[in-house]
Amino acid sequence: QVGIIMGSDSDLPVMQAAAEVLKSLNIAFELTVVSAHRTPMRMVEYATKARGRGLKVIIAGAGGAAHLPGMVASLTPLPVIGVPIKSSNSIDGWDSVLSILQMPNGIPVATVALNAAKNAGILAASIIGSFEEHIGDQVAAYKKKLEEEVLVKIENLKKQGWENKFD
Amino acid sequence: QVGIIMGSDSDLPVMQAAAEVLKSLNIAFELTVVSAHRTPMRMVEYATKARGRGLKVIIAGAGGAAHLPGMVASLTPLPVIGVPIKSSNSIDGWDSVLSILQMPNGIPVATVALNAAKNAGILAASIIGSFEEHIGDQVAAYKKKLEEEVLVKIENLKKQGWENKFD
Amino acid sequence: QVGIIMGSDSDLPVMQAAAEVLKSLNIAFELTVVSAHRTPMRMVEYATKARGRGLKVIIAGAGGAAHLPGMVASLTPLPVIGVPIKSSNSIDGWDSVLSILQMPNGIPVATVALNAAKNAGILAASIIGSFEEHIGDQVAAYKKKLEEEVLVKIENLKKQGWENKFD
Amino acid sequence: QVGIIMGSDSDLPVMQAAAEVLKSLNIAFELTVVSAHRTPMRMVEYATKARGRGLKVIIAGAGGAAHLPGMVASLTPLPVIGVPIKSSNSIDGWDSVLSILQMPNGIPVATVALNAAKNAGILAASIIGSFEEHIGDQVAAYKKKLEEEVLVKIENLKKQGWENKFD
Amino acid sequence: QVGIIMGSDSDLPVMQAAAEVLKSLNIAFELTVVSAHRTPMRMVEYATKARGRGLKVIIAGAGGAAHLPGMVASLTPLPVIGVPIKSSNSIDGWDSVLSILQMPNGIPVATVALNAAKNAGILAASIIGSFEEHIGDQVAAYKKKLEEEVLVKIENLKKQGWENKFD
Amino acid sequence: QVGIIMGSDSDLPVMQAAAEVLKSLNIAFELTVVSAHRTPMRMVEYATKARGRGLKVIIAGAGGAAHLPGMVASLTPLPVIGVPIKSSNSIDGWDSVLSILQMPNGIPVATVALNAAKNAGILAASIIGSFEEHIGDQVAAYKKKLEEEVLVKIENLKKQGWENKFD
Amino acid sequence: QVGIIMGSDSDLPVMQAAAEVLKSLNIAFELTVVSAHRTPMRMVEYATKARGRGLKVIIAGAGGAAHLPGMVASLTPLPVIGVPIKSSNSIDGWDSVLSILQMPNGIPVATVALNAAKNAGILAASIIGSFEEHIGDQVAAYKKKLEEEVLVKIENLKKQGWENKFD
Amino acid sequence: QVGIIMGSDSDLPVMQAAAEVLKSLNIAFELTVVSAHRTPMRMVEYATKARGRGLKVIIAGAGGAAHLPGMVASLTPLPVIGVPIKSSNSIDGWDSVLSILQMPNGIPVATVALNAAKNAGILAASIIGSFEEHIGDQVAAYKKKLEEEVLVKIENLKKQGWENKFD
Repeated sequence: QVGIIMGSDSDLPVMQAAAEVLKSLNIAFELTVVSAHRTPMRMVEYATKARGRGLKVIIAGAGGAAHLPGMVASLTPLPVIGVPIKSSNSIDGWDSVLSILQMPNGIPVATVALNAAKNAGILAASIIGSFEEHIGDQVAAYKKKLEEEVLVKIENLKKQGWENKFD
Repeated sequence: QVGIIMGSDSDLPVMQAAAEVLKSLNIAFELTVVSAHRTPMRMVEYATKARGRGLKVIIAGAGGAAHLPGMVASLTPLPVIGVPIKSSNSIDGWDSVLSILQMPNGIPVATVALNAAKNAGILAASIIGSFEEHIGDQVAAYKKKLEEEVLVKIENLKKQGWENKFD
Repeated sequence: QVGIIMGSDSDLPVMQAAAEVLKSLNIAFELTVVSAHRTPMRMVEYATKARGRGLKVIIAGAGGAAHLPGMVASLTPLPVIGVPIKSSNSIDGWDSVLSILQMPNGIPVATVALNAAKNAGILAASIIGSFEEHIGDQVAAYKKKLEEEVLVKIENLKKQGWENKFD
Repeated sequence: QVGIIMGSDSDLPVMQAAAEVLKSLNIAFELTVVSAHRTPMRMVEYATKARGRGLKVIIAGAGGAAHLPGMVASLTPLPVIGVPIKSSNSIDGWDSVLSILQMPNGIPVATVALNAAKNAGILAASIIGSFEEHIGDQVAAYKKKLEEEVLVKIENLKKQGWENKFD
Repeated sequence: QVGIIMGSDSDLPVMQAAAEVLKSLNIAFELTVVSAHRTPMRMVEYATKARGRGLKVIIAGAGGAAHLPGMVASLTPLPVIGVPIKSSNSIDGWDSVLSILQMPNGIPVATVALNAAKNAGILAASIIGSFEEHIGDQVAAYKKKLEEEVLVKIENLKKQGWENKFD
Repeated sequence: QVGIIMGSDSDLPVMQAAAEVLKSLNIAFELTVVSAHRTPMRMVEYATKARGRGLKVIIAGAGGAAHLPGMVASLTPLPVIGVPIKSSNSIDGWDSVLSILQMPNGIPVATVALNAAKNAGILAASIIGSFEEHIGDQVAAYKKKLEEEVLVKIENLKKQGWENKFD
Repeated sequence: QVGIIMGSDSDLPVMQAAAEVLKSLNIAFELTVVSAHRTPMRMVEYATKARGRGLKVIIAGAGGAAHLPGMVASLTPLPVIGVPIKSSNSIDGWDSVLSILQMPNGIPVATVALNAAKNAGILAASIIGSFEEHIGDQVAAYKKKLEEEVLVKIENLKKQGWENKFD
Repeated sequence: QVGIIMGSDSDLPVMQAAAEVLKSLNIAFELTVVSAHRTPMRMVEYATKARGRGLKVIIAGAGGAAHLPGMVASLTPLPVIGVPIKSSNSIDGWDSVLSILQMPNGIPVATVALNAAKNAGILAASIIGSFEEHIGDQVAAYKKKLEEEVLVKIENLKKQGWENKFD
């Protein structure tokens, strides 16, 4: 249901967090490399065939002058989630963020935070979850679990001796 | 199906572009003001009831230290699209962009470009279109129409006398 | 008298500097985790009960799209001191600074420098010291001590042989 | 109780918003010009006498290389609220913000948003309100009023015909 | 010899400066609209056919998340000159500059200053002039003329009465 | 004694403030255009002859990729004051500031604030005043006058009815 | 055919990537140090003699207030490719980028990404390749090879077990 | 003749480069700590006595919200050279640069590059050298020596086998 693509296999350490969160939520996905600049025709083919192949959401990660998410969005009616990657050639991530986020009218990219591939996976699940109820329930459960993890940390702080009259 | 909310009615001139594009695609929506800072409890109620009320996507616009999209995202499993608004108190839009985009792991916001409420509407349509085929067809048609508008402009440039041996 | 909260226990290494300076000035405080995005209802409860529980000042630290200080400020009439944290997901701290500092009219957050939890503690002491004279005297003494520490360093430089005809 | 100072009388159009909000809350204040760079000895005298003269909070506004708030903070144990002003010589306000916000350890300035003199006034009221209960009640009422103003705007949007099934 | 393309006809007021300088140097050019996002297949066709059609240099202008220059560069062995345009949706031009300049290894774009279409034209002439001597002479003459224009201005300043003992 | 140069006569409205302040302090100066990029050999000649011609200080203003101040500094042992100008092709002045300020080791430029030609004139006077006592006295008097102008403004604020218990 | 120059031999680790790519494409080049600030007259001589010596393209790298590429461009009709270097004295590369990119009208520099000397070499090859067909073929082959390297990586990802229904 | 001051002894590793260059040029200097925020009255005394004590130039280094150079400049008619230091609490040096550079009209600071204490020393020598001929000759010789060092590096590159037909 979700296609995860990235500009280079050097982006895999960042992007696999998207795969992991989808796997943990039992959402089917595929993952491959599609480079806007080195394999432009592959990009065209991937994007134009995506809807017909049954994909519901595309997650695209890239860094520097990051054209992959926006170009894919121009070639498919599917929602495209862009992950700006702070790659080695990036100026502190600003180029990655701006070249994915600042798309012109007509061609949106759903941009997440710098390197936030995990959030891209959760957002894809949210999107699917709006239409498949059990996925929606899983996303709700996931956010509930985040809360519970915090509650454990709060107890730990108390055990460490930090004054806390609130809890 | 889509809830459009904004931090202040002064954001309406920007945000109504989201409403207009949804209307043109025959997607039902509602539009109101929900302020993270001035009506925090209303925000909590709006976000926690959204899924139960049948909304599929929430579009939230805000400027400056823009907390509305991220806070709503923390309170609902629905996908939340954030529109950074270059409001009068904003430092050239950087605060709006960063305080919406840079969400922590677990709570994504699908951020679009500065002031790009129109793109938020199209993205919402894309999301719905992944699961409702006629909407997906409409989004594809919308992007096709963008292409046709460019072709008209190309002809106009030729008529104005600009040399063009390609077409 | 002072409530110190932070978005995650990973912020503790930065935020405990606030606790330490308050302890050194004999000002009572509590410290816990309140996450705007993972425990939003806990945040609401903490903020709305803070004045009734006798707190005078709240110090809130967060990084990235840092919504905790501003959201707490929207829910309490108490002064809220915001500490922007350069967390691992932050773009060099700019997101943390701007999403805490650039609050809209009506809901101020008293923002200190990036990672400056120590200064948040001193500012809290200054605030209390305006109304409790012995605390005010302690703050004055603290600043005096800073001066004395510099004088020692000046002597050290002279001992190292640096020419200094002023002193 | 509150001293409002600014680097130049050209800052008055921005800074008088602090005076107006204090007046509306019946909090006594004074307002004058103290320039760090053109009247440095006046600044020293103002800051060192402030506590003895009974001031509880100082609000200092300045633009560009804005040294007034930080220098005053170094000379008084009182809390100092800094207002970064986007003056004519400022680089989009970044210089004003950074030269007020980024104070070294030991000497905090409670910084508010760019040009946010109104918020400086509200923050001063919050500080006083932590120790004078009727002022604290007024601040709580002020924030309540902000909420009510939003509710009116929500009704206006409904009257203008915007669909809203939430309210 | 030179193909001038731009993402939208709204870029024409900026981009025609490239055409004008080429015309003044008697270098053949064509000018049309090629949008990376609205006409992606046209872009592919334009870029892949460019060398075969006898073009020597492509000048591509775009704003915001500006993908046109980089995508064209990925599809042709010709040198591509990128003109970052400060379009209405741009964040002060930073997005335009970074998304054109920061290309990954293997796919360079020769980027000129923000809105500097005139310089793109001169750079194209320089490139051609390295291989066609009379064009090279014209570029040298053009730079000589710039010098002469300055000399006139120097005389004007002297006539206005400004002291100048150097000339 | 002071040579004022600028990259273009379009910089004159900014740069003449340097001339005016020098005139008011009775310091001899000359003013002309020297363009690093359009008259590079004139720049070389101006810089290499400056010391021999009896100049004591050079003030050089330029905008965008502003190379004039740094290049002149590389060609003369005289102190060079650089004025970054926010010219029409500048990205909010950042290019002007950084390309003047960030000189490599060995070749300093004394940089003043964006557009601050007046301060360049005062700095030149300060430099001369360190060695010519009456000029030094004039600079001291100039700073004293700044203080007096503030005192007048303080009285004006009092007359306008602003509470002021300090004066 | 290509002259590679740099402001300091400390730039060699970055700049030799340009030499290597030219060598791999069998394009003749020379490489030396020309410092705008430490050897200004050498720079003048190098630039003014370049065309006469038969150079077709100059690649110039520099960091911080990087004046070398722009100054050389002002002294030659040849195309000049500028490589902004993130040297030790640079503010995250912004100074290097802006002082090379933001050249005034009349004097373009073909700027590549931060530290992207390899791309400078490829761009030089593209320029020559527009006029020497076998070089143009080599550049086309180089870009083809980039594509093939990606295809290998795609296979590797499949072998590692990543789901991929597209290929 | 030169007073070198810094906000903290932690700035010494940066600032001693100013001392070393002055020592190598046989220019008398003193060096001590003067903190604007921790020893404000010492700063006032140092600055107001500087001219009377026979200093010709003051070099002041500070980081973060760096007020020392500007405050000293407001209290003395001497030229003040400001060294922005990238201290541990600085946001990549931007705060240090802007709070020193962006001084208001009337009170200039001669700002050098980030951490460029060596250049501050050379600039001080340039200033003195304009009025003491043998110092001026030394500065000229220093710049000549920089050139010679480059010439050695050029030979080294040739010996390493880099093609160089220019020399």
